[in-house]
Amino acid sequence: MYNSFGYLFRITTFGESHGPAIGVIIDGCPAGLVIDESFIQSELSRRRPGQSALTTARKEDDQFEILSGVFEGKSTGTPIAIMIKNKDAKSKDYSHIADKYRPSHADYTYDQKFGNRDYRGGGRSSARETANWVAAGGIAKLLLGQIGIVSKAYVSQVGQITCSKPYQELDLSQVDSNDVRCPDAESAQAMEEHIKAVKKDGDSVGGIITGVIQGVPAGLGEPIFHKLHAELSKAMMSINAVKGFEYGSGFAGVAMKGSEHNDAFTKKAGKVATSTNHSGGIQGGISNGEDIHFSVAFKPVATIMKEQSSIDKTGEEVVVAGKGRHDPCVVPRAVPIVEALAALVIVDFYLMAQTSKLQE
Amino acid sequence: MYNSFGYLFRITTFGESHGPAIGVIIDGCPAGLVIDESFIQSELSRRRPGQSALTTARKEDDQFEILSGVFEGKSTGTPIAIMIKNKDAKSKDYSHIADKYRPSHADYTYDQKFGNRDYRGGGRSSARETANWVAAGGIAKLLLGQIGIVSKAYVSQVGQITCSKPYQELDLSQVDSNDVRCPDAESAQAMEEHIKAVKKDGDSVGGIITGVIQGVPAGLGEPIFHKLHAELSKAMMSINAVKGFEYGSGFAGVAMKGSEHNDAFTKKAGKVATSTNHSGGIQGGISNGEDIHFSVAFKPVATIMKEQSSIDKTGEEVVVAGKGRHDPCVVPRAVPIVEALAALVIVDFYLMAQTSKLQE
Amino acid sequence: MYNSFGYLFRITTFGESHGPAIGVIIDGCPAGLVIDESFIQSELSRRRPGQSALTTARKEDDQFEILSGVFEGKSTGTPIAIMIKNKDAKSKDYSHIADKYRPSHADYTYDQKFGNRDYRGGGRSSARETANWVAAGGIAKLLLGQIGIVSKAYVSQVGQITCSKPYQELDLSQVDSNDVRCPDAESAQAMEEHIKAVKKDGDSVGGIITGVIQGVPAGLGEPIFHKLHAELSKAMMSINAVKGFEYGSGFAGVAMKGSEHNDAFTKKAGKVATSTNHSGGIQGGISNGEDIHFSVAFKPVATIMKEQSSIDKTGEEVVVAGKGRHDPCVVPRAVPIVEALAALVIVDFYLMAQTSKLQE
Amino acid sequence: MYNSFGYLFRITTFGESHGPAIGVIIDGCPAGLVIDESFIQSELSRRRPGQSALTTARKEDDQFEILSGVFEGKSTGTPIAIMIKNKDAKSKDYSHIADKYRPSHADYTYDQKFGNRDYRGGGRSSARETANWVAAGGIAKLLLGQIGIVSKAYVSQVGQITCSKPYQELDLSQVDSNDVRCPDAESAQAMEEHIKAVKKDGDSVGGIITGVIQGVPAGLGEPIFHKLHAELSKAMMSINAVKGFEYGSGFAGVAMKGSEHNDAFTKKAGKVATSTNHSGGIQGGISNGEDIHFSVAFKPVATIMKEQSSIDKTGEEVVVAGKGRHDPCVVPRAVPIVEALAALVIVDFYLMAQTSKLQE
Repeated sequence: MYNSFGYLFRITTFGESHGPAIGVIIDGCPAGLVIDESFIQSELSRRRPGQSALTTARKEDDQFEILSGVFEGKSTGTPIAIMIKNKDAKSKDYSHIADKYRPSHADYTYDQKFGNRDYRGGGRSSARETANWVAAGGIAKLLLGQIGIVSKAYVSQVGQITCSKPYQELDLSQVDSNDVRCPDAESAQAMEEHIKAVKKDGDSVGGIITGVIQGVPAGLGEPIFHKLHAELSKAMMSINAVKGFEYGSGFAGVAMKGSEHNDAFTKKAGKVATSTNHSGGIQGGISNGEDIHFSVAFKPVATIMKEQSSIDKTGEEVVVAGKGRHDPCVVPRAVPIVEALAALVIVDFYLMAQTSKLQE
Repeated sequence: MYNSFGYLFRITTFGESHGPAIGVIIDGCPAGLVIDESFIQSELSRRRPGQSALTTARKEDDQFEILSGVFEGKSTGTPIAIMIKNKDAKSKDYSHIADKYRPSHADYTYDQKFGNRDYRGGGRSSARETANWVAAGGIAKLLLGQIGIVSKAYVSQVGQITCSKPYQELDLSQVDSNDVRCPDAESAQAMEEHIKAVKKDGDSVGGIITGVIQGVPAGLGEPIFHKLHAELSKAMMSINAVKGFEYGSGFAGVAMKGSEHNDAFTKKAGKVATSTNHSGGIQGGISNGEDIHFSVAFKPVATIMKEQSSIDKTGEEVVVAGKGRHDPCVVPRAVPIVEALAALVIVDFYLMAQTSKLQE
Repeated sequence: MYNSFGYLFRITTFGESHGPAIGVIIDGCPAGLVIDESFIQSELSRRRPGQSALTTARKEDDQFEILSGVFEGKSTGTPIAIMIKNKDAKSKDYSHIADKYRPSHADYTYDQKFGNRDYRGGGRSSARETANWVAAGGIAKLLLGQIGIVSKAYVSQVGQITCSKPYQELDLSQVDSNDVRCPDAESAQAMEEHIKAVKKDGDSVGGIITGVIQGVPAGLGEPIFHKLHAELSKAMMSINAVKGFEYGSGFAGVAMKGSEHNDAFTKKAGKVATSTNHSGGIQGGISNGEDIHFSVAFKPVATIMKEQSSIDKTGEEVVVAGKGRHDPCVVPRAVPIVEALAALVIVDFYLMAQTSKLQE
Repeated sequence: MYNSFGYLFRITTFGESHGPAIGVIIDGCPAGLVIDESFIQSELSRRRPGQSALTTARKEDDQFEILSGVFEGKSTGTPIAIMIKNKDAKSKDYSHIADKYRPSHADYTYDQKFGNRDYRGGGRSSARETANWVAAGGIAKLLLGQIGIVSKAYVSQVGQITCSKPYQELDLSQVDSNDVRCPDAESAQAMEEHIKAVKKDGDSVGGIITGVIQGVPAGLGEPIFHKLHAELSKAMMSINAVKGFEYGSGFAGVAMKGSEHNDAFTKKAGKVATSTNHSGGIQGGISNGEDIHFSVAFKPVATIMKEQSSIDKTGEEVVVAGKGRHDPCVVPRAVPIVEALAALVIVDFYLMAQTSKLQE
């Protein structure tokens, strides 16, 4: 169960950074969905390494193969298995850290938990796993497209550089128009320069991604332990390097009064709506029809080119420094990951909602 | 499955605010645990309404009954069922909002999802449910006590008033020494006064709770979709009024460089340790033996005594104002809830860890 | 998870034979179902002890209370909790076997597994648990009633006395017309006399229950690991004393040729049908619209009034003999249990089927 | 969730008969297990088609690849993905039945459930899926081998020809010494001749497989809904063509008296044992340390070479006859499948048992 996510639309993944392949089984996709493979490939390309000067130089074309569950272009209702072969895996890059514990990496904790660890490229702890999520999320997006739901995300902060405009004032169709994936051109340029400077210094920096899900009908989410935002949170906290999640008013809402924070119900164009949206589109764990919006905080990448002190398996003090090819800042490549996970969560709740009340 | 939480130590809950009783089944508690009922009762008393001038005047003694799973004072390994009867349920208080949608409450979304809603006291969406979690968490704490793990929490912010000291400089044994549950006496007094002022004004205010789990051995957590912090996040986001979660460096970590943020491994007293703890005790989703620390953001309570505009079931514009007995700020009573959920998460991972590697 | 059954319509149970109460939480019942409490009570009365000369003299009226999930007579979509208090629990009856292992009971295995055992009345291993299933099954039957599905069962064999007529030749509305619950009056009388003779002798005897589910539309069931008959089998094998399960042609089908066994498709009254039904209404794990029929084998009850040799906790040889009040043959009271479990399985698959294909 | 089996040792499978590959993810295998690939391959060879004159002529060497979860010959505790490519898939063989519903196959029910069906070779409903189970079962067997548990099975009946000796009188190491996999040479020869005669006639015949699991310690199994025999039953009923399951005394136990059926506890060589084993090694759903033994009934294969009447998608009457390469009797090849599923069930319960009681 440990490597599965979701309930009715459930993914189960496998794969290490330097093994022969990674992959994902999507179980519960309804039959009859047209599977647009080129769309899935384009989503993978948004995540893949080597796509710009801001990312790792590792080259993976991340070409995927569908092994099952699709017949004559449509889902059959049986499990859709997707495999992505690992190509540019330079295992030699990692031999120097086989016995060393890299600071703020998962080396030490894996060793403590499992005893036996594939140290090449981080093994199972590598963010390469997220390619599986993007592929599965591609199918989730296709399904959401059928019901008018769109899952979007963009970079709203890099280091201390923030995009000060709220998402409502941005053109979310322009997210991919620059390498950093911030739709505000001015902020994007400042972020990009900052990332390049940090990279040049052999260091890394964190960032924030804002997610926006539009078109969600009222009534998705389960009241107690499967609140829509709780599952979103769990999904986002599963991404490597994520340290925080907030939705709607988030941490800033703490300082508000109830009289300021409450979203008054009203009618817009004959439909129930709220005049503000501090609720972030979710009340009592269930969508209310407004935009769902949230933020995800990423720490600076742990792998840096600078020398750091640490210890090895035997407890001896050692010095480690990254030698491989790594991202100085993960948020540009993490945008499609956030979108994919959000899409997976929403599809799952959409399927659950089919059985909430007796059909008449 | 919707009303269950956890995997091997799994709780399933039921109950509405104004029904005959609420309750929880704890499935998977190992046999042989001494069940100290007075401890569980004391935990419930920390959460119950009417405990101080800062909380709602609703009176519930929250006396619990164990219906199964305990024999001669010890757990038998079979499900432990706990029931808490509802006593002071004044259903009349709610008749005025049977057809009205209170702003930022779950009235509208429940209606959209289920069609059929128990509107008395919020029904299933009431925070009364959290008494179930505290009861179950009491048992989790007893089990953790056997292995030296302690789950603590305290109020670190109310509105704009923050406790500026980090948790390491506070005496966490003093959390319950004041009504607001902040172990820093000076901050506590300012918070208390603020809550009273807000209450007098018929308004409400938000806050932040900081959680600290100590004594967790390295190796708890599952790498991909059951990361320790992801499950913690999901748990905390399940609490009514929570809008955000962060652990370790959290949102503030975004602005740091990798060279500042990385926690160097070192040895302390012959044991592996880290010199800083921006990781919050978790690396790659698995505990590393350091303190696990995190923050939970609560919005201001939606029920206020002021008049607010809204609509009713028929779409007509209406005015609503709280009439019942409500908390102006939930964080003082939410401290034991945060502790309980954290304990439930840790116990679950502790049990999972029994099967991570082959026994030798 | 251990005490839960079902996926979308999921029950979680608790309770020991001699504790204060037993109970069940039904999670996933769609909102809007009219809950006919008198029907549920009548189902419990069909299972309760002391109902006829054929059953144990233990008196339990098995009156149930609904603690949550129902408002103004209808399900709300939140968990329905049902509690049944234990009344006539004579714990003294069991003190003599606190340290003895009764042959073919669960005393020894519970001790091996848990160390700590509630020995009164078998504790958690008592068939009293099945009252929970019948109560939950009552709700499942009410839901199935809305879509025209009926779950029936009857006694088709007691010891060596078989009802030779196939179910198609019996009037299943007459199942409750006699104490043994065989709708064939002649067989019923012979079975009844046999049970009485066995009882008089202080012994016990086994039996077979045949189940028939009618009105199931084609398309329920999941192809691989949740085949309709596999879940039915698991459900039936969960009943105390059950040793075997078969559906359709069952064990007898082994000796047939494919050319004899295959069910030819044809049309009846304009609808797809099969000319025979060796498939038992299920093909590839999915219902085909024909009657689902199956048989469940029950061993003779382990508790007998005769003396038997055994050992105690210390390994000493001892003699045990039943002293309490027990059924000489369980099948008459197990008929509503079989019906209830079958109803729970079908409701679950009915809900799952809502998401099998894309809605058009 | 539909394509997953097991809880802590959980497999999730994919693949159609004529797609590019089938495969399985094994999630929850403890780290540190030596993965003997040649053993897994030998298990697959026992199941593969074309292995003898008794089986289908379809040629699949069923060579598997491990894609993840194994490093330097040992499991790492992360998911083990196994892929088996489909090689000899003659899709043309099936074009004639694309629109026809083969009697007693899953064609009609898949169409009713999903609308969209991969008709080539039965698609997902093909028994090719069982290769995944045998591969995963191979790993389960390796783990069981570490703790002294052996999962064995053999053919005990073909058509009306039964092996009359109980398993205790057979040499289970000789199961693979003949093509039919019955360790009693005389019975084996009669069975073999019968299968050949049936094949020559273009017909098919059923059979029974007996399973025996030895070395299981007392205490495995969960009391209520995860009884050891209930999960075994569900597993076996998941195999294509299975119609019945019984364990211990099974259906024959029905006709016995309690005084005959009860297994007296005694001591053998200083250990608790039972003098008989009608319980089949399981009491109250939990293993008691005796051999676990059970029987599985297989119907005659639905595909026969004779002409049969049926209907097509449009409801027109049609005639169908098998043209491909099929087994006249599945039991010889199903022996390793039964063993594999039993091993998967036992491993899962073994892992669960690690958390049954508090460690001292």
